[in-house]
Amino acid sequence: MTEPTGFLFPRSPEGRADIIAAPPWHYSGTWLTVEYRTNPDNVRALLPPQLGLDEDDPGRVAMVFADWQSCTDGGEELLDPVQSQYSEAFLAVKATYGGKIYTRIAYIWVDRDFSLGRGIHMGYPKKFGSIYQTRPFPYGPAPRIAPDNRFGASLASYDRRIAEARITLREQAETGPTVNVHPLLHSRLLRSIEKGQPDSLDELITHGPIRAEGSKPWLADAELRLFDSPVEELANVKVDEVLGGYYQQLGTVWDGGTLLSPRLSSEDHAS
Amino acid sequence: MTEPTGFLFPRSPEGRADIIAAPPWHYSGTWLTVEYRTNPDNVRALLPPQLGLDEDDPGRVAMVFADWQSCTDGGEELLDPVQSQYSEAFLAVKATYGGKIYTRIAYIWVDRDFSLGRGIHMGYPKKFGSIYQTRPFPYGPAPRIAPDNRFGASLASYDRRIAEARITLREQAETGPTVNVHPLLHSRLLRSIEKGQPDSLDELITHGPIRAEGSKPWLADAELRLFDSPVEELANVKVDEVLGGYYQQLGTVWDGGTLLSPRLSSEDHAS
Amino acid sequence: MTEPTGFLFPRSPEGRADIIAAPPWHYSGTWLTVEYRTNPDNVRALLPPQLGLDEDDPGRVAMVFADWQSCTDGGEELLDPVQSQYSEAFLAVKATYGGKIYTRIAYIWVDRDFSLGRGIHMGYPKKFGSIYQTRPFPYGPAPRIAPDNRFGASLASYDRRIAEARITLREQAETGPTVNVHPLLHSRLLRSIEKGQPDSLDELITHGPIRAEGSKPWLADAELRLFDSPVEELANVKVDEVLGGYYQQLGTVWDGGTLLSPRLSSEDHAS
Amino acid sequence: MTEPTGFLFPRSPEGRADIIAAPPWHYSGTWLTVEYRTNPDNVRALLPPQLGLDEDDPGRVAMVFADWQSCTDGGEELLDPVQSQYSEAFLAVKATYGGKIYTRIAYIWVDRDFSLGRGIHMGYPKKFGSIYQTRPFPYGPAPRIAPDNRFGASLASYDRRIAEARITLREQAETGPTVNVHPLLHSRLLRSIEKGQPDSLDELITHGPIRAEGSKPWLADAELRLFDSPVEELANVKVDEVLGGYYQQLGTVWDGGTLLSPRLSSEDHAS
Repeated sequence: MTEPTGFLFPRSPEGRADIIAAPPWHYSGTWLTVEYRTNPDNVRALLPPQLGLDEDDPGRVAMVFADWQSCTDGGEELLDPVQSQYSEAFLAVKATYGGKIYTRIAYIWVDRDFSLGRGIHMGYPKKFGSIYQTRPFPYGPAPRIAPDNRFGASLASYDRRIAEARITLREQAETGPTVNVHPLLHSRLLRSIEKGQPDSLDELITHGPIRAEGSKPWLADAELRLFDSPVEELANVKVDEVLGGYYQQLGTVWDGGTLLSPRLSSEDHAS
Repeated sequence: MTEPTGFLFPRSPEGRADIIAAPPWHYSGTWLTVEYRTNPDNVRALLPPQLGLDEDDPGRVAMVFADWQSCTDGGEELLDPVQSQYSEAFLAVKATYGGKIYTRIAYIWVDRDFSLGRGIHMGYPKKFGSIYQTRPFPYGPAPRIAPDNRFGASLASYDRRIAEARITLREQAETGPTVNVHPLLHSRLLRSIEKGQPDSLDELITHGPIRAEGSKPWLADAELRLFDSPVEELANVKVDEVLGGYYQQLGTVWDGGTLLSPRLSSEDHAS
Repeated sequence: MTEPTGFLFPRSPEGRADIIAAPPWHYSGTWLTVEYRTNPDNVRALLPPQLGLDEDDPGRVAMVFADWQSCTDGGEELLDPVQSQYSEAFLAVKATYGGKIYTRIAYIWVDRDFSLGRGIHMGYPKKFGSIYQTRPFPYGPAPRIAPDNRFGASLASYDRRIAEARITLREQAETGPTVNVHPLLHSRLLRSIEKGQPDSLDELITHGPIRAEGSKPWLADAELRLFDSPVEELANVKVDEVLGGYYQQLGTVWDGGTLLSPRLSSEDHAS
Repeated sequence: MTEPTGFLFPRSPEGRADIIAAPPWHYSGTWLTVEYRTNPDNVRALLPPQLGLDEDDPGRVAMVFADWQSCTDGGEELLDPVQSQYSEAFLAVKATYGGKIYTRIAYIWVDRDFSLGRGIHMGYPKKFGSIYQTRPFPYGPAPRIAPDNRFGASLASYDRRIAEARITLREQAETGPTVNVHPLLHSRLLRSIEKGQPDSLDELITHGPIRAEGSKPWLADAELRLFDSPVEELANVKVDEVLGGYYQQLGTVWDGGTLLSPRLSSEDHAS
């Protein structure tokens, strides 16, 4: 007897119906980043207790707007681009664990279900949002990737705008963003279906791209505004000082990660 | 030190940012159901091996279109209805396990992220779709809930229509649908973040509403058409014979379930 | 030689492709209304010069959230409800012309193209928005149409929330709203394709339903909040005092109107 | 007394609320074109009687998928890209009038209201659709603009896919598409609000960009599939032979046009 197949769900006889096919996953995309400093207490409040704050500028965080095309091996999804294109926006913070520094995505919004499905596997806490980002273009009024060119980005959740950014490119540099550059340290969490029972899943995982290519980052002047919403807490990670804007085009491949801690129960946290 | 709180994700300092708040979850909604008979092999192919086919009419399945308003205790989401309203469509089949009969949702599409988030917890294999259903209304051309009144419904996934139904109400009856009536038997599955390692989560769970109210079901004449798509397998559950249409308005409360089998590894399946 | 046919556009060989079929148009729907008083100067600023302010409470306006199902004769669109269902939100003001009092929709947002197409014909200045409204329901947590039951509504435009309302039903009454009750006085305007030339179209029209049925209106306690946006001016029609909330279910038929003034050129306006 | 201002609608005190600001309109975008031959009768059936068929290959038409960023002078919309980005798909045919050859857009779908608003002014018969197109990218799996690279595109209307195309770039050429290259010949049509009365507007207009820049076109191998829908007639313009695929990036400026025939009444058509 055969079994329905698939990577996440639904599992189906042919495996075509799955919300997301098995990795490796290939990505082409753009990161429009604004790094800023908030009170480190705001970062601390986003981290589970077993993680620590980075000692070096612990309040430095990054708001990133990303515009993606993704696919599996062979790239068939790129030719039916409704299966390939999506946008996302996320808040990246730094965290330490076992003496190492990691990047942790505290909040993230995407606009397509296949991306949310990948997030379930990768430990990204994805919700839906409406995300826009100016695209560079070689002709007409849209910006070139060149000095003094300007790009904007916005994020809305539940019909309310909650973030908007504007950057002005200055110059390409050898070094760029400093927050969303470490291996990711994410949680995969699921409550028990039974009330009062221990969580069914509480994993701490790490991963990152197995390959990446891209341009040297552009440095940019940047503005960032966060707006309150009854269903979001992003604005509580208040912008005290904008530290830099960055613009990067990149290609990456993702193909799994490492389980750091298989079952961090609440009891473990308290130690 | 406090910890970010929440039910699913993201966990946040105040717990407001969560894609879905903790149950109990309260629902008001409508089910437009078409039951039909397919080759039982099509049902068998949707079930994991440890589940069995119902001996009584094993090929009887139900395509259900649902129009919901949901909320937590207190009902605050109903007053900001972007937090409350959603539509879904699903294929329900029957399955047996441990000598009992269950309903299993093999495929399901929803149109809002909070519903997809609840599905992660409840073991519904939710993807996004565009779902429409005629709404009854007491004035003007929209149908009344009365004999000879007609309702339509449709489902699209990835910009392709994959199902449409039409029903004509006939009479209210003591008995109604027979497929989507048993306790749900769902799986919660998650691959390991590490390739080649055992799954991180492979649970068999059961649950159902803790309270339900509603009208007696309406029986209806029904038509159902399924359409193929490169990213769906619904049409493979071919409509051999339409067995009945049903229309029900209901209110339910959900508050958790029971873990039947905590870790059904692939090895267990083979026995 | 035959000609492409249709009511608005595109005209096509069979006339099926039209964004909107010819009237009569039939509607079933709900109006959630909040009437409020603003400075009459805010109303005056919304009216073309040839229209006057109502002398009786000239600053009384209505913000209305509507949830519709519409169709042509025969009702076929109701059975493919993606062709039938839409929501809208609008600001209604009073205006006088030729000694009579009219209702004028100053701003209106809808969420489907067929509704926007009808607006082009009917002189509604429709833009797209995201509109939600609590729906009454006989079971579960959603409200009944009964005293003390609460309904909410919201409007977003260009990813920014710009209006939200909440009402609590009190009692059914013989009289209800007083703003959105007069014949409509709308403009149909189109600039010349040639710069600097007189407008191609500048009509003042009036119309209203040819038939209407519905319940007696419910009176309600009401709250209304308007929010600013760089691409909207609704919030400039400031809420000085909420005057009443109303809830009505209705069915109407629309089948054309009357041309009051075929060509109001800018010169005519100045007299 | 001041008057509400604006270019199309709504007219408002500050003119900010307008669905579309006054031209000039600046565009950056991409055209993915598939030219094909259909029976010339299918083209004839799309043209009003006063227009003629091009004698040179009268059945040659073009299905075009376009991905745009647009703005007014100053480019402010580009920095709030929800005001700037949209996609469209259209069927272009050739038509003659007064001894000259023109391009006429017979069907067109867009995904944002500001684009539909511009279409009302420019005589494009725009409806809403869901349009996707592969985007070129310098890194990762997305295609480069280079030989053998592949791009796909799709169009859905009312939750049904109605067109999809795939092209493989071959070489850059001096000459490219031949259909969507002439001045546009469009109609601006509006029925009277009064039933049985002459149309309020029936203009034949022509226009084109006042400036354009772009790359030499890429020639491509192409596939195109059209699908039927109860609310569309695109598939009736049957693909008998694919004649060529093309890929172009361009920048244009539009700033008005010329009125060819101010009032083509139905009576005029019959002559």
